[in-house]
Amino acid sequence: MTEKIARFFAENTPATPCLVVDLDVVANNYANLHDALPEARIFYAVKANPAPEILKLLVERGSCFDTASIPEIQYCLTAGATADRISFGNTIKKASDIARAHALGISLFAFDSMEELEKIAEHAPGARVFCRILTSGEGADWPLSRKFGCEPEMATELLLAAATMNVVPYGVSFHVGSQQRDLTQWDKALAQTAEIFHALEDKGVMLRMVNLGGGFATRYLKDIPSEGEYGNAIEASLRKHFGNRLPETIIEPGRSMVGNAGVIRSEVVLISRKSHRDERRWVYLDIGKFGGLAETMDEAIKYKIQTPHDGGAAEPVILAGPTCDSADVLYEKTEYRLPVDLRIGDKVDILATGAYTTTYSAVNFNGFSPLASYYI
Amino acid sequence: MTEKIARFFAENTPATPCLVVDLDVVANNYANLHDALPEARIFYAVKANPAPEILKLLVERGSCFDTASIPEIQYCLTAGATADRISFGNTIKKASDIARAHALGISLFAFDSMEELEKIAEHAPGARVFCRILTSGEGADWPLSRKFGCEPEMATELLLAAATMNVVPYGVSFHVGSQQRDLTQWDKALAQTAEIFHALEDKGVMLRMVNLGGGFATRYLKDIPSEGEYGNAIEASLRKHFGNRLPETIIEPGRSMVGNAGVIRSEVVLISRKSHRDERRWVYLDIGKFGGLAETMDEAIKYKIQTPHDGGAAEPVILAGPTCDSADVLYEKTEYRLPVDLRIGDKVDILATGAYTTTYSAVNFNGFSPLASYYI
Repeated sequence: MTEKIARFFAENTPATPCLVVDLDVVANNYANLHDALPEARIFYAVKANPAPEILKLLVERGSCFDTASIPEIQYCLTAGATADRISFGNTIKKASDIARAHALGISLFAFDSMEELEKIAEHAPGARVFCRILTSGEGADWPLSRKFGCEPEMATELLLAAATMNVVPYGVSFHVGSQQRDLTQWDKALAQTAEIFHALEDKGVMLRMVNLGGGFATRYLKDIPSEGEYGNAIEASLRKHFGNRLPETIIEPGRSMVGNAGVIRSEVVLISRKSHRDERRWVYLDIGKFGGLAETMDEAIKYKIQTPHDGGAAEPVILAGPTCDSADVLYEKTEYRLPVDLRIGDKVDILATGAYTTTYSAVNFNGFSPLASYYI
Repeated sequence: MTEKIARFFAENTPATPCLVVDLDVVANNYANLHDALPEARIFYAVKANPAPEILKLLVERGSCFDTASIPEIQYCLTAGATADRISFGNTIKKASDIARAHALGISLFAFDSMEELEKIAEHAPGARVFCRILTSGEGADWPLSRKFGCEPEMATELLLAAATMNVVPYGVSFHVGSQQRDLTQWDKALAQTAEIFHALEDKGVMLRMVNLGGGFATRYLKDIPSEGEYGNAIEASLRKHFGNRLPETIIEPGRSMVGNAGVIRSEVVLISRKSHRDERRWVYLDIGKFGGLAETMDEAIKYKIQTPHDGGAAEPVILAGPTCDSADVLYEKTEYRLPVDLRIGDKVDILATGAYTTTYSAVNFNGFSPLASYYI
């Protein structure tokens, strides 16, 4: 929790639950990411937190933007980004949305299938396209499915086909999985990417760009690599696989740009046991899986929690949200310990919650409003 | 899909994704539930779908309402329900919300702990309270955690304590798990409930009400018991455990009241494979886990899907949503077969989606709007 956020809570006592984001931390994250990979262009993954205040700050700093939908493109344009700084990074797009993006001036599109490539060639003629390849996602805390990307062999075919169509085969993208703490994962993906570059070059098609995706971690409970360590590992891999003919690079940080900038303040609604023999107390907060903490799904993201009684005796608890839904349990398998002195009505702070919280929250589940947020 | 919904789609071609609910089906469900358990008062679980059109219809039919929050209480009051027809059924309530409900005239409250009971006695003096007991939830499709309810032994203690406080110990509630297809689960819970009634009676405290909860199933892919079968099983258990001194009963249907009344129309955004060797095609819809189909979490609820090509050759597919989130996969372990002729741009209908869809949808994830809905 930064001093600025602490002061905000002290001076404003906003109704809970709410998220407060310190924009200075976002600016600092941007600077650190830029220093760690000075050659890479930063495309902020807007889905992590599309608040206008964040987008405006990043526009001013010179960031580009990775978007998932027409509304996200419009948020960026409204915040002052020009269309050449916006990528339509979703591999799953309606034809009508591709046409709309094209009309808005967007010229950089992701794809991972012939079907999507054909849509782009038809509805965004002349666009630069990059093909996403599958990676295993091993070592990432947030599960990476096979949903995005195709096998590298198919990527080579598709990019060759792109060269015959009304688009520019521009590069390759991958994503090593969100909250990725294993630095070797970028090396594996870059080895495959370089093979695609070489295969295309053999056929006379020169790719220019590698999109390194996101995956840079935010500190929750466990230690994480620093921006510099990510940067060094990636630069070493780029040199290893591309020699002195380095491609343009793009990174798409989302979580690492805004995660640690935010704190959710919540109130303890109930503390109870199911029986006198119950070994763990249940602590029910006024925010849960459906109010913004969706990433606690399968207890994937383990947030750090601060209470007014930290430092005193603690005991293991089960943490749950306030809705009448039995699935709305935050942590039961993961051992969380909270102070014995914690009481109903206490305020607790859930740290590093600036990413993937506000927009994930349910519109009206159980009658609860979406997560309120403040950008300071 | 009812004729009325089919006509609506034909005449209006609304933008997808959207939910269309046939109010005649809701009315029919209410009548069937009432016929199946004529002695039970129906408290509709508002969280399943709080649309004003549904609440108004149920107010007119004579339904009561089970609510989870102050906004849900206000929806019911606005729809014309008097406060005596509304229960505050969430066992996790802020003291300020209990006081607000009391001020609004609500006099029936759930609890499952001494801590909550004390809050109710202080902030809603004179209220009737019922204690929720834990059940195993075996046989239910939607997972039931230990989040709600206490051990029966503790429920007995708490209800005895309630008799010494400024509240009326009114009864016992349980929930056998949502989408419960095992009729014997009610019998187990009723046996425990009857024991609590008898233990209290021995101490001179007469409970009056058994809240049988929800759990009545909606037809998705598998066959389910009819309302009459649920009713017969429950009535037989009530007689077995309570003899000729039957308590008042309450049921809290949510899913079974509105689930089969709704159809979500969605568009196929992309159909592709990850490699030429891929055995299953990926079918990406314009709705997913974060757009209203949250109950596909862990593939718990398996919706039936209709396409314009049904009847022709079909093949196994993986179904996923449109967001840039790797967790937004609907069905991968469950075998879904869709027509070989299915094409990008086709409209598909996801049946029995009237419950737990609109309010679950994310407020703005990936820039996508919450699920649009029509009540006809």
